[in-house]
Amino acid sequence: MLIHSASQLLTLAGGPQRGHALGTLGIIEHGAVVVREEKIVAVGTTDEMRAAYPHEPSLDASGCVLMPGFVDPHTHVIWAGDRANEFGMKMAGMHYLDILAAGGGIISTVHATRTASIETLISQTRPRLLRMFAHGTTTAEAKSGYGLQTATELRLLKALLALDDEGPLDLAITFLGAHAIAPEFKDDPQGYTDLVCDTMLPIVKEWWGTHAPRLSLPFVDVFCENKAFNLEQSRRVLTKARSLGFPLKIHADEFDNLGGVSLAVELGAASADHLVKTSEADIAALGKAETVAVSLPCTPFGLAECHYTPAREIIEADGILALATDCNPGTTWNESMQFVIALACRAMKLTPAQAIAATTINSAYAIRRADTIGSIEVGKQADLLILSVPDYRQLGYRYGTNLVKQVIKRGRVYSVDVGYYRTA
Amino acid sequence: MLIHSASQLLTLAGGPQRGHALGTLGIIEHGAVVVREEKIVAVGTTDEMRAAYPHEPSLDASGCVLMPGFVDPHTHVIWAGDRANEFGMKMAGMHYLDILAAGGGIISTVHATRTASIETLISQTRPRLLRMFAHGTTTAEAKSGYGLQTATELRLLKALLALDDEGPLDLAITFLGAHAIAPEFKDDPQGYTDLVCDTMLPIVKEWWGTHAPRLSLPFVDVFCENKAFNLEQSRRVLTKARSLGFPLKIHADEFDNLGGVSLAVELGAASADHLVKTSEADIAALGKAETVAVSLPCTPFGLAECHYTPAREIIEADGILALATDCNPGTTWNESMQFVIALACRAMKLTPAQAIAATTINSAYAIRRADTIGSIEVGKQADLLILSVPDYRQLGYRYGTNLVKQVIKRGRVYSVDVGYYRTA
Repeated sequence: MLIHSASQLLTLAGGPQRGHALGTLGIIEHGAVVVREEKIVAVGTTDEMRAAYPHEPSLDASGCVLMPGFVDPHTHVIWAGDRANEFGMKMAGMHYLDILAAGGGIISTVHATRTASIETLISQTRPRLLRMFAHGTTTAEAKSGYGLQTATELRLLKALLALDDEGPLDLAITFLGAHAIAPEFKDDPQGYTDLVCDTMLPIVKEWWGTHAPRLSLPFVDVFCENKAFNLEQSRRVLTKARSLGFPLKIHADEFDNLGGVSLAVELGAASADHLVKTSEADIAALGKAETVAVSLPCTPFGLAECHYTPAREIIEADGILALATDCNPGTTWNESMQFVIALACRAMKLTPAQAIAATTINSAYAIRRADTIGSIEVGKQADLLILSVPDYRQLGYRYGTNLVKQVIKRGRVYSVDVGYYRTA
Repeated sequence: MLIHSASQLLTLAGGPQRGHALGTLGIIEHGAVVVREEKIVAVGTTDEMRAAYPHEPSLDASGCVLMPGFVDPHTHVIWAGDRANEFGMKMAGMHYLDILAAGGGIISTVHATRTASIETLISQTRPRLLRMFAHGTTTAEAKSGYGLQTATELRLLKALLALDDEGPLDLAITFLGAHAIAPEFKDDPQGYTDLVCDTMLPIVKEWWGTHAPRLSLPFVDVFCENKAFNLEQSRRVLTKARSLGFPLKIHADEFDNLGGVSLAVELGAASADHLVKTSEADIAALGKAETVAVSLPCTPFGLAECHYTPAREIIEADGILALATDCNPGTTWNESMQFVIALACRAMKLTPAQAIAATTINSAYAIRRADTIGSIEVGKQADLLILSVPDYRQLGYRYGTNLVKQVIKRGRVYSVDVGYYRTA
């Protein structure tokens, strides 16, 4: 298939974009891509591609931007129930602790998730994944973590494997047993940390080998924060995970700086995520590391807070910046990476070009898939977007709606209907 | 047609909601509406309606919220071209009024609009209106104002009349010749004010009588702001318009407090819009007036500013609060009232219930159509939304995507596809 005549083809070629290289779009005007089966086999101008592939069936992208599919590198997309009731209470001024005392907060989602069957978990999560896909996300990271007990965490991993298998979205799965202290261990965080390290991690490794023998091990993540896992507990979880061969991620500096970023860099984690209260020393460490700094601007936006990741400082320090939705039922239920781009431009003063690189090639790198996705290069998986706009700068400038016209996933074309049709 | 089994039917019955009455949704659980031709003929529980209308063809809304269509009371939706190139400049810190003073901003859209044919204006505006409609806006106010010369302003009004006639969205049209000082009058704002008052307004009145004899006169609006029209010039425009029989609106206090709100109240304007830098005295005046306070939170969001309408103070002062997109090519290109609700909850601490009332019955009142739209009451136009969620509080809580499943406009059903379908 020849996708041709794109007003702008954004290749994002050349690998992850560090520091001030962020925003190198590799624009080909009047661009074209040749796709065979699941792969990209040629990239160039429409004239070049038409000459080289004269008999290829074609898909017209005239007047449109053609770019890599979005890669969302941080989501908690699998859960049961919702917390809409808490949102109204929060906006009416009710304090978080009162909501918690009333049985709300993350623990209410844990209760709903524990009592949900795998069928319920899959049927409630599928529409969120399809909504992501319709907004241009072709690969998403997805974490367990609303079980906080071995059986439920395994059920979440099993549901995620089934959803990955079902497609069309590809999932990069993460085990986040260390998402919060389980309610049974409310007064014994050390005991829960022991459970994660000594019981859950070995079981997950063995279980994965049985249930997903052809896939590499999932990421292991930990929520390093006051009232969750302190730095030493986080170190224990990640060190144990590393010794078992798991690749690593960390939640760090969402509300307080505990040193999680430097821990992530020291242990060679794929990414350190949130990074709101990150110190200058930690920013400097990111500038010398392969650990990707994943910013989640929707989280402070969702909470109506005004502190965001110091993204420009991370760029200045030569770090590798990526962006994600953090889609979850508590702080930010938004599936759209387009909104993440719009918010990142405004709240963190990124240019649209920087935000696009941070949601494609760099976010692919944050889930260690930059060898196969995140850019339009020969040999890569054909995960592409055709936008209904002629200039990439309309991403960010326009917001609140969906600018994706077609999603090409592993070479198959899906049309997105942002309009309506009459039924009666 | 019987629309039945809605998990929540939000009637918004009882007229505009002043002060702390804001947010009175009138919820009927397991609700139903009977629609005949373009009108609502009965409202109640599903059991009641099924008993009273046993042979009515039915539309199942089970698991869904059924509510009035959104009314967007402030848009600049008709223009030619775009200003994606200015977006990066603004993110780099250049002020909107400085871009305007340098000949960019509004004036660059004015140049593009003046050279556009009516066919171009219609074809570029239609997708924006359909995008609004797909996101649940069933009636929108739409202003001229990118002409700033008589012939182009009339062409804009003509295009808006054609788009209103075409549907499905209904338009409430506003003449905004006083949107900015026309470039030809750069050094003579008084001269341009004279042109608006002495030439444009009488011509528009006569033209309207010829081209839209069955419609009441459009609103007349003025941008009362430093570098646009000062208070005395604004007073001249509005006083002249009122003497010709036009209903009034005003842009006030977006960047500076010039006293526009009290002027609007004094002259009996339908609404005063923006209201960011509104004084305590002006807020108090709104509390005693029928003039609706229309807040446009997307404008500061779009500009990455952090000052919003003092919405809670307006409620406290007993004002009538409404919300609008302000959709325009410079400061905020967002068509979705759902995002306005999400932003209003976070930035101005409205509850979802308050934001819903401010985007339906109160915004209908801001365009003086609360007698026919904005609520689900017997005799009103059948402009309804079926949301893909069971609880109204998911509006605001969830954001960035489209929660509308079906739009019923004047009794006709339109299905919205937020997903995708496979084409190859």
